[in-house]
Amino acid sequence: MQRIAVFPGSFDPVTKGHQSLVMRAAPLFDKLIVAIGGNIEKTTFFSLEQRFEWLKKVFAATPHVKVMKYKGLTVDFCKEVDAGYILRGLRTSADFEFERSIGQINKQLDTSIETVFFLTASEYTPLNSSIVRDILRHGGNPQRFVPDEVDLTPYFRKEQ
Amino acid sequence: MQRIAVFPGSFDPVTKGHQSLVMRAAPLFDKLIVAIGGNIEKTTFFSLEQRFEWLKKVFAATPHVKVMKYKGLTVDFCKEVDAGYILRGLRTSADFEFERSIGQINKQLDTSIETVFFLTASEYTPLNSSIVRDILRHGGNPQRFVPDEVDLTPYFRKEQ
Amino acid sequence: MQRIAVFPGSFDPVTKGHQSLVMRAAPLFDKLIVAIGGNIEKTTFFSLEQRFEWLKKVFAATPHVKVMKYKGLTVDFCKEVDAGYILRGLRTSADFEFERSIGQINKQLDTSIETVFFLTASEYTPLNSSIVRDILRHGGNPQRFVPDEVDLTPYFRKEQ
Amino acid sequence: MQRIAVFPGSFDPVTKGHQSLVMRAAPLFDKLIVAIGGNIEKTTFFSLEQRFEWLKKVFAATPHVKVMKYKGLTVDFCKEVDAGYILRGLRTSADFEFERSIGQINKQLDTSIETVFFLTASEYTPLNSSIVRDILRHGGNPQRFVPDEVDLTPYFRKEQ
Amino acid sequence: MQRIAVFPGSFDPVTKGHQSLVMRAAPLFDKLIVAIGGNIEKTTFFSLEQRFEWLKKVFAATPHVKVMKYKGLTVDFCKEVDAGYILRGLRTSADFEFERSIGQINKQLDTSIETVFFLTASEYTPLNSSIVRDILRHGGNPQRFVPDEVDLTPYFRKEQ
Amino acid sequence: MQRIAVFPGSFDPVTKGHQSLVMRAAPLFDKLIVAIGGNIEKTTFFSLEQRFEWLKKVFAATPHVKVMKYKGLTVDFCKEVDAGYILRGLRTSADFEFERSIGQINKQLDTSIETVFFLTASEYTPLNSSIVRDILRHGGNPQRFVPDEVDLTPYFRKEQ
Repeated sequence: MQRIAVFPGSFDPVTKGHQSLVMRAAPLFDKLIVAIGGNIEKTTFFSLEQRFEWLKKVFAATPHVKVMKYKGLTVDFCKEVDAGYILRGLRTSADFEFERSIGQINKQLDTSIETVFFLTASEYTPLNSSIVRDILRHGGNPQRFVPDEVDLTPYFRKEQ
Repeated sequence: MQRIAVFPGSFDPVTKGHQSLVMRAAPLFDKLIVAIGGNIEKTTFFSLEQRFEWLKKVFAATPHVKVMKYKGLTVDFCKEVDAGYILRGLRTSADFEFERSIGQINKQLDTSIETVFFLTASEYTPLNSSIVRDILRHGGNPQRFVPDEVDLTPYFRKEQ
Repeated sequence: MQRIAVFPGSFDPVTKGHQSLVMRAAPLFDKLIVAIGGNIEKTTFFSLEQRFEWLKKVFAATPHVKVMKYKGLTVDFCKEVDAGYILRGLRTSADFEFERSIGQINKQLDTSIETVFFLTASEYTPLNSSIVRDILRHGGNPQRFVPDEVDLTPYFRKEQ
Repeated sequence: MQRIAVFPGSFDPVTKGHQSLVMRAAPLFDKLIVAIGGNIEKTTFFSLEQRFEWLKKVFAATPHVKVMKYKGLTVDFCKEVDAGYILRGLRTSADFEFERSIGQINKQLDTSIETVFFLTASEYTPLNSSIVRDILRHGGNPQRFVPDEVDLTPYFRKEQ
Repeated sequence: MQRIAVFPGSFDPVTKGHQSLVMRAAPLFDKLIVAIGGNIEKTTFFSLEQRFEWLKKVFAATPHVKVMKYKGLTVDFCKEVDAGYILRGLRTSADFEFERSIGQINKQLDTSIETVFFLTASEYTPLNSSIVRDILRHGGNPQRFVPDEVDLTPYFRKEQ
Repeated sequence: MQRIAVFPGSFDPVTKGHQSLVMRAAPLFDKLIVAIGGNIEKTTFFSLEQRFEWLKKVFAATPHVKVMKYKGLTVDFCKEVDAGYILRGLRTSADFEFERSIGQINKQLDTSIETVFFLTASEYTPLNSSIVRDILRHGGNPQRFVPDEVDLTPYFRKEQ
């Protein structure tokens, strides 16, 4: 049986933290699906299309990492794509408390799906997408925090 | 002197976690008032009337549990109904930090009122109203997480 | 039915934090038993007799607060004294994580016993018995952190 | 070389917790700039002008404490005013997790700037600006939580 | 390449929490080695031989779960047995902080080894080996918290 | 008035985390005293003399960083050396909870002394002296985690 995992997120935008996590976790699975989940109309900073293209570029060279979009519950999407695992990164204990609730609830919604956690590398522990957006909003340049494939130049200083 | 407690919340919607907590805490008090607090215009998922009706149904069979609505500060409501205790459930340490601030501030606003905490049962620790709403928003069915008296069928898949 | 609670601890020594908690929680119960639990031979700083005497003095004027000693599991002691409640204080989120485990396990050992938590007053949040002992061990004077009935003079500077 | 620090915040409104922190930290620095940071259009409860005036009144008598406003990244503002330090208060471990991320990211944006933390005094640990606003929103009187120079009377009960 | 994981611990004794975690994580790996690590002479409650036998019985029916003992660093043991993964369970945020440090240090000691985390099931979240030992020490019966293969009868009430 | 700080610890042994913290904090003070505190007879891994010599070597080139030993309470030592500040590093939220208690108690013991916190750099967040000792105890080589001046070769594999 194939070991397939889904790495769900909004990737608004994908950071070096996400990239590092996926590259480290990928060998554990036969297929790893990086999946942009959708609140039907939650406002994001970057458009769904932009986020999707960036993810595809970032993981283009890793054959068994796929990029997809989905609507609805993550556990339902897992069933559609035959995934038995949800992959999540853990940065802080605040993350952990939140992820534990979601993971234990998902387990009750579908007992066949397990959530698997990797630690973020220590240099990326302080980093998340929200910090990247905040730097942009304040006119700063967060390019160093995102993969090279993600060019933030068009957004930089725009907000000012 | 009667021991009267207020269990304040938005109950948007009431969950099995709330229900279990109230049933376990009720014997400690002579009267336990489950009270829907009101931000004058905080947007909730379910209407005030719907949340109030559900609560009344859920606790209909427990004579000394009353369901009420209130506006204003919780400590002021406590004085109106002669309650000396505020009841709160604790799920996670994130909960705890928040509740400690609120509880210590309430104590400064009115030194005669004590906050009393019960733990959620371990099976309900991952559960809260926000998770129930999220499942609904994503087209899932959270019926198992709410009391039988709360029929979520009319809301299920509606959002899709 | 009487509402009886046990406040278990090692009280090595009793602090102003313990005293304040008991005085605030006492009105909620018909009887509140402050109970020194015993690891058969865990080393304590103060002798069992000394700790017991101090507790009796501190709560001498509060008729429905009793001071007792016990061996064995706290839930077993509760049954012996007809207590339906265990009282615990919460200071920090580290406390909370520990207390949640103990409380949920006690609930599994005896479903009829509930753990009830009070917050420590904000001025006593940083204080616990271990800090009092550490100050003594380093030759400091922690008298301000314990009730007047607890005279630490004989222990002060002794260790140096 | 002068030791200059920036204490950034939204001060919506300034509380006794902020005041106490600034007065305790001021002697460590040659100049301490209390700086209202600006999300270009994040909605605040009190206007930028009102918050700025209150801060100036509160710290009028402390010569080397200056009050300023800024836009953009805090690290960029620090460079403008030759500050080598960012001052922050720590109340809870939730605060800490958040501050650690921001502090470590700021360090990556500008390695010459250090974040320095002071603890809030234990009596102000439960207090923050958001609690003050919530009390106002619910028709309560939070005057005791703010410095005397901040007169909340015009806002009190207004919302009801 | 085979995916081999080590689940290190002292298993003093193995609990239903450990058992549940191993059974849920086993399908993710081609081989899962439950490994009793050794502080050369850290005092344990149960002898190494007893703990080893219990583990072998508990996992006897799961062919690709092996039970082993080791001395030295966990990362060195991983290399000996060709394991690329360390498996750990997460119960609380206190656990998480500790595990994050160990995991990130292990990563620095050997960049080829990843730590993979599973959540404990919510019913086992409050449970750990230390609680089982404490119940025994106080003359209680913790049999319900360990797998059937672990017979604690000979130890029960012995300590009293 | 001179700004003098004490950085207390057991430094068993000093790590790159300590070194980095002291070098970053030193410019904030006119004198920074790295001080080995003494539990009269708490067992340490390295002798007091060894730890003291290592600290002196590590900070030999930084003129206004002094290395000292002390007995008794940290606040009493501060008075002896005219220090108005205690410097502490913060790694994790567990650290924070502990440090907050100690810091707030010290403030009550001597209101003239403030505790000032710096964050550890993100690459040193997982590191502490206890991890260094554990690696040695298990026969591993933790040389990379300590300053070059600290030669752990004589201790390496000794324990096996």
